[in-house]
Amino acid sequence: MSEKKAYELTEKEIDFSRWFDELLFKAEILDDRYPVKGMYVWLPYGYSIMENIMNIMERLMRETGHKRVYFPSIVPESVLSREFNFIKGFQNTIYWITRVGLTDLNERLALRPTSEAIMYEILSRWIKSYADLPLRIYQVVPVYRYETKATRPMLRVREIAFFKEGHTFHATFEEAEEQIKLGVEIYKRFYDELLIPYIVVKTPPWDTFPGAHYNYDLITVMPDGKALELGSVINFGDLFAKTYNLQYVDRDGSKKYVNTTSFGISERSFAAVIGILGDNKGLRLPPKISPIKVVIVPIPAKEHEREIEEYAREVYRVVSSSFSSVLDDREDEKPGYKFYKWEIKGIPVRVEVGEKELKDRTVTLFRRDTGDRVMVRFEEINARIEELLRDIEENLRREALEYFRSRIAYIEDKKAIKELLEKKIVSFPWCGKKECALDVEEAAGYSLLGYEENKLEGENKKCISCGEKAVHLAWVGRSY
Amino acid sequence: MSEKKAYELTEKEIDFSRWFDELLFKAEILDDRYPVKGMYVWLPYGYSIMENIMNIMERLMRETGHKRVYFPSIVPESVLSREFNFIKGFQNTIYWITRVGLTDLNERLALRPTSEAIMYEILSRWIKSYADLPLRIYQVVPVYRYETKATRPMLRVREIAFFKEGHTFHATFEEAEEQIKLGVEIYKRFYDELLIPYIVVKTPPWDTFPGAHYNYDLITVMPDGKALELGSVINFGDLFAKTYNLQYVDRDGSKKYVNTTSFGISERSFAAVIGILGDNKGLRLPPKISPIKVVIVPIPAKEHEREIEEYAREVYRVVSSSFSSVLDDREDEKPGYKFYKWEIKGIPVRVEVGEKELKDRTVTLFRRDTGDRVMVRFEEINARIEELLRDIEENLRREALEYFRSRIAYIEDKKAIKELLEKKIVSFPWCGKKECALDVEEAAGYSLLGYEENKLEGENKKCISCGEKAVHLAWVGRSY
Repeated sequence: MSEKKAYELTEKEIDFSRWFDELLFKAEILDDRYPVKGMYVWLPYGYSIMENIMNIMERLMRETGHKRVYFPSIVPESVLSREFNFIKGFQNTIYWITRVGLTDLNERLALRPTSEAIMYEILSRWIKSYADLPLRIYQVVPVYRYETKATRPMLRVREIAFFKEGHTFHATFEEAEEQIKLGVEIYKRFYDELLIPYIVVKTPPWDTFPGAHYNYDLITVMPDGKALELGSVINFGDLFAKTYNLQYVDRDGSKKYVNTTSFGISERSFAAVIGILGDNKGLRLPPKISPIKVVIVPIPAKEHEREIEEYAREVYRVVSSSFSSVLDDREDEKPGYKFYKWEIKGIPVRVEVGEKELKDRTVTLFRRDTGDRVMVRFEEINARIEELLRDIEENLRREALEYFRSRIAYIEDKKAIKELLEKKIVSFPWCGKKECALDVEEAAGYSLLGYEENKLEGENKKCISCGEKAVHLAWVGRSY
Repeated sequence: MSEKKAYELTEKEIDFSRWFDELLFKAEILDDRYPVKGMYVWLPYGYSIMENIMNIMERLMRETGHKRVYFPSIVPESVLSREFNFIKGFQNTIYWITRVGLTDLNERLALRPTSEAIMYEILSRWIKSYADLPLRIYQVVPVYRYETKATRPMLRVREIAFFKEGHTFHATFEEAEEQIKLGVEIYKRFYDELLIPYIVVKTPPWDTFPGAHYNYDLITVMPDGKALELGSVINFGDLFAKTYNLQYVDRDGSKKYVNTTSFGISERSFAAVIGILGDNKGLRLPPKISPIKVVIVPIPAKEHEREIEEYAREVYRVVSSSFSSVLDDREDEKPGYKFYKWEIKGIPVRVEVGEKELKDRTVTLFRRDTGDRVMVRFEEINARIEELLRDIEENLRREALEYFRSRIAYIEDKKAIKELLEKKIVSFPWCGKKECALDVEEAAGYSLLGYEENKLEGENKKCISCGEKAVHLAWVGRSY
């Protein structure tokens, strides 16, 4: 891949959208020149970061008893369309295969937009009795949704390349509700590890996932003030099970419908990391997901060139024994260019080795998050890098939270809403009535993102619309 | 998943095909009741084995400098059809998307049958100069080929769920040839780790991969005597590059076409492990890919029931500190049933803990490959299991090779061929002329599998067809 690209980025605060697209390309995450709109090529560097992100998710899924499976990508129309609300919810976005080879098909085949329908079709054969429950499975697969709004790399795509979809099956509604709590908990831990702040909201009943009982969303806010849905946890109750005749024999011999849930995340998790943690110099990766933790750059001096190279190699040997690291000893590039290149890629720590360091048998540690430098003795390199990586993680977490607070607002007066929405997502006390929500939506010009259930209980707040007692904290905002 | 299935299998030697299908289902590898023919659901156990197999492949790819990427599943017809031979080779098997949502598409979209075309389209933007070469990438993705012959789980499917496709880009034809050797070497190491014997043959020029210069295949033979292609390593020379205008600027400033290769393997690798290593009791997994190395089964006795349970837990604590293991202490199943269940799943070592073991503070180690038992002292459990796993690997390798030798034949007389082909694949001296190959194919009733190049050089053998000097060892056989 050609590297000699101008490395400067548009300023993030001035044009976030452009900054984001430039960064994806210049940091070698995605190539957006794929000949199908809304689809992107994942470059090796981007892929390796996304792999680390997904490894965190897989660990959390395994630790909580979810087992990985694989269901085919292709679903017959008859199976998909059995659940009316479901197919209706997806009808504008489904890819239809109507022909194979030189022959037209009798029945159209869909590319999976998500796998509820096809899984329930099959699981009615796996689940016979209460002893088969609960059952928790997941897969990580591409899903296909022909987005009708303007596409954006990672944010609104027509092939979600990394869709982790969990699907669970339970004897009772109560057990399904416990699973919903577990699903939300898994996603909270996941985004905590990614250092991404979020709110958890319930979707209003008139806006739930197609065919669902209710769902919770994790939502963050991007630097342009737009809400980004990070993950969804959905309780279907027995609604889907009835359609797919998913029944089990209970202890008492009676037949009952299975209660089902699903929960999904995608590469939007990576988009949040890029958007929220990145700066004008590029990515700033949480050390945990950075494929390279440390890059070592020798700084040649006219005299001692050989010795500096040799010393840099010695440093590399020590550092790479404990950290995934790279020695950038290319002779045809200047240190300044190397600095920019690794900064745009978000490598947490850079080790600089030049004349002074050689003389003192020290190294200079540069931290990507703050840009600060510190000189440390050769003997303590690894201990200090270890410390630094922890510091960087804590600092990024703190900065992200600070940033997040600057992008959310709380109001008790509808008048303020329009202006605030230009830069933030906005919360307000809500009584729970649909008409009040619609009234606020009209004032805002945007839809409700959801509401934090009973968050204001006991706080004696008044609904921003009707003035009656408010128990929920509702959120509204522009969104991706 | 319901477990109380009859565990007996059809005998492998009597009806291999049925044995194979039964095993996939009863060992909980695949569910073959998916409502699209030729597509299958991977169950958690099957998925976890396949994941281990793919992890070996990924390690080999990384060690040899191949970087993982992701290209979308969907390819515009115009890109796919640019290479005439390529599209012709796949024209009967491509899935065509003609409609999205409620709208017909202007241009048909194909599901990738393999990714050469789309990658070359994009890579003409990545590769500018000699400094960008060599470039080695790979992805692990499903690919879609509508098989027109009868489908078989894992062996002939319409969605290859685990396709590892490597694609490489080189300055010269010679470098591409070096890469071909590397690709073959990677696959040899891969199948050596899986304990699967193979031959490496070159495909005759009239039967190469669509659009290719030449290709090598790794081939093994299944218990029904049918050849199974395990992997393919393909040299496109600059043929594809010319179609996709994939050029680079060389050191001297001149523009040259890139030389490209590709190589792929799939879940057939797992099918070979099942078919070749399995026996009438089920799977026999190479320890390296077995998700569970050891299962511990307590054998209750009327007295001491509690103590035996307690002792089994103690054994589990020790064993699980070193090996991925399971304590099967379910009270509602008899030991005999547990034995069968873990044997069908191919777990290499079983630890039995009963009254005698409790009394003597020993355990009984049962090895899945031979069915032998040995009693060992509690203190030496882990050391002995370690040893046993090594022994099992060596024994399975030896048995597989012995088996392989029983399924191949060498002839110098065409008359013998027909009968041998009922149970074996057959090799013979070949001069290299197409007419001689066609003559043997006619006598055999089957196509050439390929030939080992110059294998007979200096051996003074005569072509089985024309009687002139033979240099190659050619292979013919029935095949999947």
